[in-house]
Amino acid sequence: MVKFLGQNEAINIDQELFNEYKFSVDQLMELAGLSCAVAIAKCYPISDLRDSNILVFCGPGNNGGDGLVCARHLKLFGYCPSVYYPKRTEKPLYQNLTTQCQAMAVPFLEDAPTAEALNKNYSLLVDALFGFSFRPPMREEFVSVVDAIKKSGVPLCSVDIPSGWDVEDGAPESGGLEPDLLISLTAPKKCAEKFRGRFHYLGGRFVPPALEKKYDLKLPKYPGTEVCVKL
Amino acid sequence: MVKFLGQNEAINIDQELFNEYKFSVDQLMELAGLSCAVAIAKCYPISDLRDSNILVFCGPGNNGGDGLVCARHLKLFGYCPSVYYPKRTEKPLYQNLTTQCQAMAVPFLEDAPTAEALNKNYSLLVDALFGFSFRPPMREEFVSVVDAIKKSGVPLCSVDIPSGWDVEDGAPESGGLEPDLLISLTAPKKCAEKFRGRFHYLGGRFVPPALEKKYDLKLPKYPGTEVCVKL
Repeated sequence: MVKFLGQNEAINIDQELFNEYKFSVDQLMELAGLSCAVAIAKCYPISDLRDSNILVFCGPGNNGGDGLVCARHLKLFGYCPSVYYPKRTEKPLYQNLTTQCQAMAVPFLEDAPTAEALNKNYSLLVDALFGFSFRPPMREEFVSVVDAIKKSGVPLCSVDIPSGWDVEDGAPESGGLEPDLLISLTAPKKCAEKFRGRFHYLGGRFVPPALEKKYDLKLPKYPGTEVCVKL
Repeated sequence: MVKFLGQNEAINIDQELFNEYKFSVDQLMELAGLSCAVAIAKCYPISDLRDSNILVFCGPGNNGGDGLVCARHLKLFGYCPSVYYPKRTEKPLYQNLTTQCQAMAVPFLEDAPTAEALNKNYSLLVDALFGFSFRPPMREEFVSVVDAIKKSGVPLCSVDIPSGWDVEDGAPESGGLEPDLLISLTAPKKCAEKFRGRFHYLGGRFVPPALEKKYDLKLPKYPGTEVCVKL
């Protein structure tokens, strides 16, 4: 049985991947974002969707970076992704990930979309707003974004953590996002035990066996050369 | 019909990916190396091999970096790769790629293996010595390495260019490596028209459609979410 990580454990594993194993953020984000795009393509083949329009919500940190990579690979898979990325960072990696998407003709929304606009324009939403380092409360500017996603009723895929959820305890008492697909990265976090959607995948096939052993992760076996695995 | 690139065209496309599209070497090397590992796993399932021992020969440049990434993913796929990486660079990316392999218990050979040792110890060899920027003659220290590979008779997979081949004209008159699998990256180079092995794959699924159009690459359609495609 796969282990569900506490927040500090997730943070420690992440640090160890960078500091001990010398992975770069570029490398792991590329593999993580690719695995998200592949999991989405498995759960929502274009032929099953009303249209191939997907909106990817990208937050200010690494979760948002995963979303930018995911959007680019979705485009290469034949989907029509757009990105809403309201709070950008100055870090070169993020600027470059943005340029890569724009150069692939992925549109970036200027204004926060309403629930109605989401419902009208997109078959699928991807929540890459906040990841495993999130601690409530959510910054005010994102509360209305999350509300619009929730009210829209459009099927939602969350990257690693449903945004607004406590990383360990799950949805806030006031109610939270209810994704249809959750893509846990590296290893699932404790909140994923409360996930009630249809599809739960694990992505980020880069964990060194010694690290898996050290943290007793008990990861499932990825089939063949797949970059993600159904949990 | 896919286009076979001349050397300068390949160099220009590579530069454009970095300078115009703002990809980092880390990103593209990760995707390229992953696609090599996947192509190898498709052509040589572990069950078809005498054993899962693979030796990856890594050269001093980017082709060697692709090889290091490939070795790491082969390990995650259940193979037992080793690496021979005689001429290392000081660049942090290459040192980090080496550390990642070592931390995954991928052995690095100290000494150049003889043809006999290759034949005895490995079911498969991966040639990631020189890529599309190679211009003959080969440095003396690599001539004997390539000779040992050739004499060993162990099935060989070449990454992008069979090492020692002219990027446009193919094998040298004195005879050259004859890989069983060639994995072209981004787009095949002119020498690939002279490839006579059993398997030819294309990997490196990251080419922006506008770049494909600009250089009239006529890339084949990658199936589904695959990272490589059979040519």
